[in-house]
Amino acid sequence: MTPLSATDRTRLGRLPERSSDDRSVLYSILDDGMICHLGVIVDGAPRVLPTGYGRSGDTLYLHGSTGARSLMTAPSQEICVTVTHLDGLVIARSLFHHSINYRSAVIYGTPRLTTGDEKLAGLRAIVDRLAPGQWDVARQPTRKELAATTVLALSLDEASVKTRQGPPGDDEEDYALDVWAGVVPVSQTFGTPSPDPLLHTGVPVPPHIAARGTETAPTS
Amino acid sequence: MTPLSATDRTRLGRLPERSSDDRSVLYSILDDGMICHLGVIVDGAPRVLPTGYGRSGDTLYLHGSTGARSLMTAPSQEICVTVTHLDGLVIARSLFHHSINYRSAVIYGTPRLTTGDEKLAGLRAIVDRLAPGQWDVARQPTRKELAATTVLALSLDEASVKTRQGPPGDDEEDYALDVWAGVVPVSQTFGTPSPDPLLHTGVPVPPHIAARGTETAPTS
Repeated sequence: MTPLSATDRTRLGRLPERSSDDRSVLYSILDDGMICHLGVIVDGAPRVLPTGYGRSGDTLYLHGSTGARSLMTAPSQEICVTVTHLDGLVIARSLFHHSINYRSAVIYGTPRLTTGDEKLAGLRAIVDRLAPGQWDVARQPTRKELAATTVLALSLDEASVKTRQGPPGDDEEDYALDVWAGVVPVSQTFGTPSPDPLLHTGVPVPPHIAARGTETAPTS
Repeated sequence: MTPLSATDRTRLGRLPERSSDDRSVLYSILDDGMICHLGVIVDGAPRVLPTGYGRSGDTLYLHGSTGARSLMTAPSQEICVTVTHLDGLVIARSLFHHSINYRSAVIYGTPRLTTGDEKLAGLRAIVDRLAPGQWDVARQPTRKELAATTVLALSLDEASVKTRQGPPGDDEEDYALDVWAGVVPVSQTFGTPSPDPLLHTGVPVPPHIAARGTETAPTS
């Protein structure tokens, strides 16, 4: 497995001990997430929008309506995709050392439009991220639906990973204070699936959906 | 209360029924969140980074180390701040209509550096977002710590809000399919506070921290 890139912008300037150049850490952050934040430049200003994504090997897939301005303009320019998991609130003895425990991945690149089989595979990667198992049971996309959907492919060549875990790091002299310090864990959970009021009577919750109610959700 | 702005970029091009120009909806999205995604332009390319934030009235506060490049460059340029809550996975009868239930706020503007009392108030707003109650019990920032911290103020003048809630919206003919459809709720929860291994014996978890283990966390 090749390590992560080390371009100037993916090499952390601050707190480099929080970075990782292990590609498997990048994969696990991406594969634990459900939404990313996509950064594009529109009329000279940054724009950040939440959106779904999927990963297949070293390619990230993003989709959008062909009518969505941010994705329409994206293929011609560099974008940035960030996935963040909030894992805990770090409560320190001093206000200055309060922090969060998190895992984040930042990917830079110029995406390309997909077509044909890759477009379909990209859509499947996106659906698998949100609802694994659904691709095989739901109605497949029509030609018209595919035409209305843009699927972009972004290489994972240029990416950085940053994480913080563990207890607070207070200043030496503050450990003498009688102030509680520690971590409040944060996690995302799935609730009980709620059927569409228009669902036919007797259609059961399929196992791959029911299972979600019992697992801990990814944290993005 | 004044409604939200309606500049070209905050007026939704697609699915305008998902927007809201009610300022109280903006406030509740911001006040339910713990981290935002900050978009800046660095060397001509977008960069999206997760960071803490706070709100006081119609001002959003962001902080960072004076050594952090993205915030250092930000005061001279427009930024975009996005807060997203993932509320549910929308499982439809057709792959095309799979979606997510979410609430998101996107804020545009050119931030300004804060100083003096406003800087302190901005820091307090940020701490209050992550750990309400901590400002009054933890060691206050020193002069040196304050000097090492940049606090930016961003007006909430130009903002847009977008939400999706409720069951899937399938195509008319797909309602006849025997495919399960509905929503899998997603929420973020706090776990049991975990004390710092270096904590003095006998320092109890304070009520404002203990309370978090029993509440549903904001979803960002």
